[in-house]
Amino acid sequence: MITSLVARAIDGDIRAAARLMRLVDDRDPAHNEAMGLIYPRTGRAHIVGITGAPGAGKSTLTDTLIAKFRKDGKTVGVVAIDPSSPFTGGAILGDRIRMADHALDEGVFIRSIATRGHLGGLSVSAMDIAAIMDAMGKDVVIIETVGVGQDEVEIASVADTCIVVTVPGMGDDIQAIKAGILEIADIFVVNKADRDGVDRTVKDLEMMMELTARRSGWNPPVLKTIATSVAGVDELVGSINSHLEFGKGELREIKRNARLFHAAQGVIKERISAKLSYGNLSKAIADSENNPYKAVEILWNTLLR
Amino acid sequence: MITSLVARAIDGDIRAAARLMRLVDDRDPAHNEAMGLIYPRTGRAHIVGITGAPGAGKSTLTDTLIAKFRKDGKTVGVVAIDPSSPFTGGAILGDRIRMADHALDEGVFIRSIATRGHLGGLSVSAMDIAAIMDAMGKDVVIIETVGVGQDEVEIASVADTCIVVTVPGMGDDIQAIKAGILEIADIFVVNKADRDGVDRTVKDLEMMMELTARRSGWNPPVLKTIATSVAGVDELVGSINSHLEFGKGELREIKRNARLFHAAQGVIKERISAKLSYGNLSKAIADSENNPYKAVEILWNTLLR
Repeated sequence: MITSLVARAIDGDIRAAARLMRLVDDRDPAHNEAMGLIYPRTGRAHIVGITGAPGAGKSTLTDTLIAKFRKDGKTVGVVAIDPSSPFTGGAILGDRIRMADHALDEGVFIRSIATRGHLGGLSVSAMDIAAIMDAMGKDVVIIETVGVGQDEVEIASVADTCIVVTVPGMGDDIQAIKAGILEIADIFVVNKADRDGVDRTVKDLEMMMELTARRSGWNPPVLKTIATSVAGVDELVGSINSHLEFGKGELREIKRNARLFHAAQGVIKERISAKLSYGNLSKAIADSENNPYKAVEILWNTLLR
Repeated sequence: MITSLVARAIDGDIRAAARLMRLVDDRDPAHNEAMGLIYPRTGRAHIVGITGAPGAGKSTLTDTLIAKFRKDGKTVGVVAIDPSSPFTGGAILGDRIRMADHALDEGVFIRSIATRGHLGGLSVSAMDIAAIMDAMGKDVVIIETVGVGQDEVEIASVADTCIVVTVPGMGDDIQAIKAGILEIADIFVVNKADRDGVDRTVKDLEMMMELTARRSGWNPPVLKTIATSVAGVDELVGSINSHLEFGKGELREIKRNARLFHAAQGVIKERISAKLSYGNLSKAIADSENNPYKAVEILWNTLLR
């Protein structure tokens, strides 16, 4: 049954794909078998990460990128990591609104995952859903992460091409996005470039980039966009395609392995969290005079097998 | 040697404490023994978490809180989780600048930890350093987290009292802080309350709070502050103290256990990350036809013991 669901999803059956992604997002036990069939079918799509501070306009930018890629004849998948609260149902509602723009276009598939209840971190769910889209034959898979937490930075860092979005004069936010972001950005976008201070922000970023060592030999451009009016988006897609060309071969292989490594780490975290119940660990902590280090020692040999 | 270092730190030797915290932050193997001696000495301090979006003025608010607590005769420790980039040395520089304000005051201890290179997530380092400050006899330990990533939310959620800081009219950021934040906030602060839109933001938050179920019976107040001019800070400290009173007994015990649980989970993650080298995991992924799920299956029984 899982075999046929996977086969149908790979064949382009949207309902089957959505069902599969729900299994992944719910961490339903059946997803293990499903993903075992999916992963060997991946490796063709160009995985593009988009990250940056809240309010930078990443969703709008993603939407304009989708339109441009479609015009160029490419199919697109989007995994949006959405920090919406569970009681507003934001993620699902957001999907519906965003999907409506592309509702008649079978070449676009958008899926949000919420940032809660993922024992293995977000990485594994995001990687799994991107893998499904890859196996479905999407040419480009965009992973859009809202916020700049460690998880989101890690996810963006394993994309083939990582875009970091900021806006003019974010002040403290520039500080915030510095957290490991400079090192992972392949392309910098200063969005809302009709705002005051855009040239200053571009200069600041260019200066920061110069101080950042890169082994790959790629020099990340700093681009200006106004996503609401599509300004600068052609240049952005040009840079994305140039980076894809640049990375062909070894760099691409490294990134792919990093994604698989990430997914595997997430699976391990999940397995361990499932084995370590609150009750077990709490008892061990109490038994060790409130010493978490000793508690781990007590549990390690008895539980993790 | 570790025993005497710990003894000196607990006795109030600042250099010994700083040395101990460096062992923790570097995850030096010696920190295991040290923390084993520290944890049984904890449980007295009031742990206060401060979190919120970048640019909300958390550091300034923390500084005014320190001054107020000191005036009330309480000693204060601060663990600041700082997303600064490693090559700017932001965290250490920031400490020096911030410590300068309280340089002559032995009742204040501030320590930043960077958001990078923590295999077990931030939780365990933050919990460890807060535990050292607790064992040193600090009356209040403030854990200040910048940003709203999953890690930061988790750390704030295990404080005895969790303060969520926002500013008027943050728009998209209000969306962002909704990610699990409403449920964990014991006190909401709208900082920079001299800005336009403050009453609207307070109303929005109050409305959101009403929709949020709480089992504890505590109704989180929404307070206005202007940290730069100390306005509203007396009321904030009043609320913090009220919440401390409210939580005495069972609630406090629950939170403390949650912190120990968090630290133990972090220790486990670290141990596992240390055992799973990139080489080992990558080989298993290759051996399993790029299937991370199967790779975990292969490694589980051979490595995790």
